[in-house]
Amino acid sequence: MTVGFPPTATRLTTREDYENLVDRYDTWLFDCDGVLWQGDTLIEGITEVLHFLRTHKKSVMFVTNNATKSRKNYMKKFDGLGVEAHVDEIFGSAFASAVYISSVLKLPKDKKVYVVGMSGLEEELREEGISFIGGTDPDDNVLGGYSLADFTTDPSVGAVLCGLDTHVNYKKLSKAFNHLLRNKDCVFLATNTDSTFPTAEGLLPGAGSISAPLRYSLGRDPISIGKPAGTMLDCIRAKHDYDPKRTIMVGDRLNTDIEFGKNGGLATLLVLTGIAKEAEVFGPNPSSTVPDYVTESLGDFRVLIS
Amino acid sequence: MTVGFPPTATRLTTREDYENLVDRYDTWLFDCDGVLWQGDTLIEGITEVLHFLRTHKKSVMFVTNNATKSRKNYMKKFDGLGVEAHVDEIFGSAFASAVYISSVLKLPKDKKVYVVGMSGLEEELREEGISFIGGTDPDDNVLGGYSLADFTTDPSVGAVLCGLDTHVNYKKLSKAFNHLLRNKDCVFLATNTDSTFPTAEGLLPGAGSISAPLRYSLGRDPISIGKPAGTMLDCIRAKHDYDPKRTIMVGDRLNTDIEFGKNGGLATLLVLTGIAKEAEVFGPNPSSTVPDYVTESLGDFRVLIS
Repeated sequence: MTVGFPPTATRLTTREDYENLVDRYDTWLFDCDGVLWQGDTLIEGITEVLHFLRTHKKSVMFVTNNATKSRKNYMKKFDGLGVEAHVDEIFGSAFASAVYISSVLKLPKDKKVYVVGMSGLEEELREEGISFIGGTDPDDNVLGGYSLADFTTDPSVGAVLCGLDTHVNYKKLSKAFNHLLRNKDCVFLATNTDSTFPTAEGLLPGAGSISAPLRYSLGRDPISIGKPAGTMLDCIRAKHDYDPKRTIMVGDRLNTDIEFGKNGGLATLLVLTGIAKEAEVFGPNPSSTVPDYVTESLGDFRVLIS
Repeated sequence: MTVGFPPTATRLTTREDYENLVDRYDTWLFDCDGVLWQGDTLIEGITEVLHFLRTHKKSVMFVTNNATKSRKNYMKKFDGLGVEAHVDEIFGSAFASAVYISSVLKLPKDKKVYVVGMSGLEEELREEGISFIGGTDPDDNVLGGYSLADFTTDPSVGAVLCGLDTHVNYKKLSKAFNHLLRNKDCVFLATNTDSTFPTAEGLLPGAGSISAPLRYSLGRDPISIGKPAGTMLDCIRAKHDYDPKRTIMVGDRLNTDIEFGKNGGLATLLVLTGIAKEAEVFGPNPSSTVPDYVTESLGDFRVLIS
């Protein structure tokens, strides 16, 4: 394995390549959608590979931008698919957003968050003791026009937080917009800004599409918590001690997972079971984001299991 | 009235200023929201000023980006507020979009448009003989998740058209996104890309916020039909003969109305009864879009009525 100039990715091929990687890294961070599973279907060999890493005393962590699920929701998904995981190994952008609001933003207890998002996000805010409005409130989950005659500027709304929300609607967007427009101290946050959301049947608009109307109408960008921002890594660091030099991030998206690993000074491994295509790394017009390693699937590490 | 270098706007003040303007221009194009009315309240003096222009043989036209209304809907608004107007004097972005699809795009009769928009937009498409799906279809006006298992790639969808839609939701956005993602010949259109929508009580997210999720998830921009694009002016030209040198555009927004006039080689008059503030023209950090003339309100022309 060599690193050239300009940097080039190394395609893992031999048993030795996989062995060297396992030897080199003690902490393994995994994205979930497109790495462990596709929609509700587990990718072949994942259970065995994760078990192999655990038996070789590797720290295993799951780092996902999907903010529709709380860590507890995620546990159910892992359990349902028969993959070993523990709540404190799971770092979702919903959880990281809640930690950011309480620990970095230090939102006073008398302030609250207006949520454009779903129950998983609300659950993490609740666990962190953060008050919120909007979200799944039936009153805000309606279709149709909205009159500002019904809107009161509320200085206690200290932040607007946007995550993927399949119940997004004009009323929620109008309220969020006006909280941010009328109160200059209200902070604009996004759990993550993924452009698309992968499902087993194809792509849907991602969390970044939910905050996009607000970015556009306000002419300003949110602080984004999830990958590739470093906030998620700060969150992991607060709970787990790790040596960046001996840590590797495994993901399927160049602009989130691989960027995230690189921003944090970690090694990066791209798998091709999700969003990124091989041509984006090895094609004639490769992406400027170059992973250290590439393999078809995380399941390829089964070559080490005899 | 002088034009300096860099260009500076002239503030209309004296009776003579207003008189000169009326002498100089034969065709008067008016934006509606923020110029003629604010929400459902007519701005003072508008009826008299429009009547004065008509009696002085001026051509009067109404050019609006609001695509929630068809020209017929607009007529009801004019009638309700007691302002004289005729259907063929009204140019809305819904009408202009329909004309664009049939005359410029020349969408074949066996193709259809997926609409993210409201009944006014559908009405204009219907009048122009354009088939469409989505829009106000109750099946697409629901809240909640969407599974692509229910989506069939339909090559007969030749365009996706987005206008202001207070019933925007994740299902419509997901369908529109997949029509555009899966069919490279499907054209991405927006009635207009106004960032905000002015109401009597304040600002709401504008039509550009409705197409923003698609722009973001697709990573590409729509063809925008309304102001400041020239398509709207092409539409007017097709119906009315006018001399650009003797035509003036009156509006309340620098980045739509005034840009529109300038792009079309027309004179421009900014009124301060809507979005733009005086400081954006005469303040220490003025906008790069400079109107030729500025007056507080269109009603100021009443100085000419003795």
